[in-house]
Amino acid sequence: MNPFIYDHDTLYCEQVALADIATGAGTPCYVYSAGFIVERFHAYNSALDGTPHKVCYAVKANSNLALLRLLAEAGAGFDIVSGGELYRVLAAGAKGANCIFSGVGKTAVEIEYALDAGIHSFNCESEAELDLIQALAARRRIEVPVSIRVNPDVNAVTHPYISTGLRQHKFGIDRADAERVYDRAMACPNLRVQGVSCHIGSQLLDPGPLMEALDLMLELVDRLRRRGVPVRWLDLGGGLGVGYRPAEQAPDVAEYARAIAARVSGLDLELMIEPGRSIVAEAGVLLTRVLYRKKTEAKEFVVVDAAMNDLIRPALYQAHHEIIPLRRRPTGTILADVVGPICETGDFLARGRNLANAFPGDYLAVCTAGAYGFVAASNYNSRPRPAEVLVEGNNWRIVRQRETFEDLVRGESM
Amino acid sequence: MNPFIYDHDTLYCEQVALADIATGAGTPCYVYSAGFIVERFHAYNSALDGTPHKVCYAVKANSNLALLRLLAEAGAGFDIVSGGELYRVLAAGAKGANCIFSGVGKTAVEIEYALDAGIHSFNCESEAELDLIQALAARRRIEVPVSIRVNPDVNAVTHPYISTGLRQHKFGIDRADAERVYDRAMACPNLRVQGVSCHIGSQLLDPGPLMEALDLMLELVDRLRRRGVPVRWLDLGGGLGVGYRPAEQAPDVAEYARAIAARVSGLDLELMIEPGRSIVAEAGVLLTRVLYRKKTEAKEFVVVDAAMNDLIRPALYQAHHEIIPLRRRPTGTILADVVGPICETGDFLARGRNLANAFPGDYLAVCTAGAYGFVAASNYNSRPRPAEVLVEGNNWRIVRQRETFEDLVRGESM
Repeated sequence: MNPFIYDHDTLYCEQVALADIATGAGTPCYVYSAGFIVERFHAYNSALDGTPHKVCYAVKANSNLALLRLLAEAGAGFDIVSGGELYRVLAAGAKGANCIFSGVGKTAVEIEYALDAGIHSFNCESEAELDLIQALAARRRIEVPVSIRVNPDVNAVTHPYISTGLRQHKFGIDRADAERVYDRAMACPNLRVQGVSCHIGSQLLDPGPLMEALDLMLELVDRLRRRGVPVRWLDLGGGLGVGYRPAEQAPDVAEYARAIAARVSGLDLELMIEPGRSIVAEAGVLLTRVLYRKKTEAKEFVVVDAAMNDLIRPALYQAHHEIIPLRRRPTGTILADVVGPICETGDFLARGRNLANAFPGDYLAVCTAGAYGFVAASNYNSRPRPAEVLVEGNNWRIVRQRETFEDLVRGESM
Repeated sequence: MNPFIYDHDTLYCEQVALADIATGAGTPCYVYSAGFIVERFHAYNSALDGTPHKVCYAVKANSNLALLRLLAEAGAGFDIVSGGELYRVLAAGAKGANCIFSGVGKTAVEIEYALDAGIHSFNCESEAELDLIQALAARRRIEVPVSIRVNPDVNAVTHPYISTGLRQHKFGIDRADAERVYDRAMACPNLRVQGVSCHIGSQLLDPGPLMEALDLMLELVDRLRRRGVPVRWLDLGGGLGVGYRPAEQAPDVAEYARAIAARVSGLDLELMIEPGRSIVAEAGVLLTRVLYRKKTEAKEFVVVDAAMNDLIRPALYQAHHEIIPLRRRPTGTILADVVGPICETGDFLARGRNLANAFPGDYLAVCTAGAYGFVAASNYNSRPRPAEVLVEGNNWRIVRQRETFEDLVRGESM
């Protein structure tokens, strides 16, 4: 289900006209569909029925408390990568026991915080991290469940910044090294070595490399069990992509989940996955308003009130986001760049795009902006960060206030 | 003067050992030299002595209140690009009358705010903006000083995201169109058309294109004056680069200032410039601590506690920043990637770099980070933004507190 549909040329999110939100909450502003998020989570979760499993939402994709609460209530676990994300998950009412902690740079303070919260397990990314967790666990005289992230050396076809499963990447340990590192972890008296994990990248439109990684990991599980490592779960990470362009066909999440479940069937293995983008990206749009139209000899520009500080994906990943009007009118289309007010050429939302012939005052929706949107927003050019709105059926409410000028200077002193 | 120098293998900022700041304020943390900033501002300002001039610091480069206060006290004007930047300049104790307002996407609310503050002038970027300022000024029955930003179509040799002076860029109006647009502005009863402005880009290591732009603008001034436009000032914008790599030789700011002053001499023209990076970049470092060393078959990694959310320049502009130890030791060098804890491959501070053989717990300085560093920081991966510290002689103090977990969720509700 796409929660953003036109009815009589007016764009809705679920049953709310987006123009009502734009005028009520102001622009720029992120809007999320609660219904879509919960439905997408259940699509994963239900497809894994019958297999021991845990769907751990990747908090980094969108960490707004209201979304985390929705997902916690739906029964999600959480994949966290920092102390701040653990704080958010706990603040949203979820239990530490539902969190797995990934990431190459866990600090001692973060590990202590996670131990206090009684998280499910750590996805360890290096031998030095195993040593640190062992030392901190020994001091507490506790046993800590760990999984080791193994780099399958599978080429995920995606943007190089979000491909993570090759040997030259900073993540995980080499597959060829896995047995040695597992032996070493098994020798740590305060680590309970129970899992194998991997994550090959993000925004994968072809599940092939994921299935390839799964097969490699299953071989490893087999080898480790023969060695006496009591592997209880396999964490396949996230990575399923979404269609940012109309022509992009994303894999069906339920089909994908059934396919991976089939491969682990009968292996006495709990399956963990860490979807993020595929749960929230299509649930969100960034609303913006046209400030100016500007035509130069070389080009036409639509200057809008959202900028790269609000959504950095076009500048950082050369990402494509569809841009559509909140009110469709028979005024034709134009070929233009959609740019924000920030003083650099990298500040664009679309380049050379055919889009609705929108005039100053008109509202536009930047589509598929629910993932890696607000979470990477900054105050660049001293722009307050936008509001965030959650839609549930015919209700909408602000779940994060727009920042004020006072917020910009918080904590500063002269 | 480089404010960051080793004494007995200990790195200092002015007279403060950076290790004292790292342990006192924690890491990651930005540190700025007050002395360098003031000296660099005076280098510009003194070189323009004898020419009517205004050095307007480009606030976008670093908008910390303590730095703005220093510059205001030194006599700087300010180039602002948003309501938030105007708020900051006023909060730092500067006068609105010392601000010029640039940018392609000024909103009506921002223009009203600038009129309330009695700013010096607007650098208008489009005909639609002229119309809007005219309308708002008419309602107030005031005359508003304006300059029009003209795009000289000069190729500034720099990163494409920060080159701004070509015809295909969103900034300014076409040079070929200038006379028509000036005529139109002159016909607006509430606009006092007094300036010509341009800005061709940022981080220019060769002042040649700037001189070329200056000549083109001077020709335009001459044509406009013959037409009856009472041009009083020429704003040449900013753009002078700094040496990020040891081999990069940046232009001397005083030489550059004297060269442009010489060309406007005798023309009865006030010269305005908008330096940002060249005043603050070399004044700042980002301090970080080594968390882990990690060696894979393919590469060696130094995992540090600063990440792309703290400094996005390497990921966004493929920018180079030197990375040096706070304490030099005879332990040789390594070839490594310096990466942060964020879960994406785009999170790096250096790739394939020869650097000091630093171990977990060691502190490093990411150099030349005073411009476009903290101002573009985000909370990506729910990481609190770093502290900012100002050094003055043998004193240092925190001028922006490190964010807390509570700050991360401010304004959110479930």
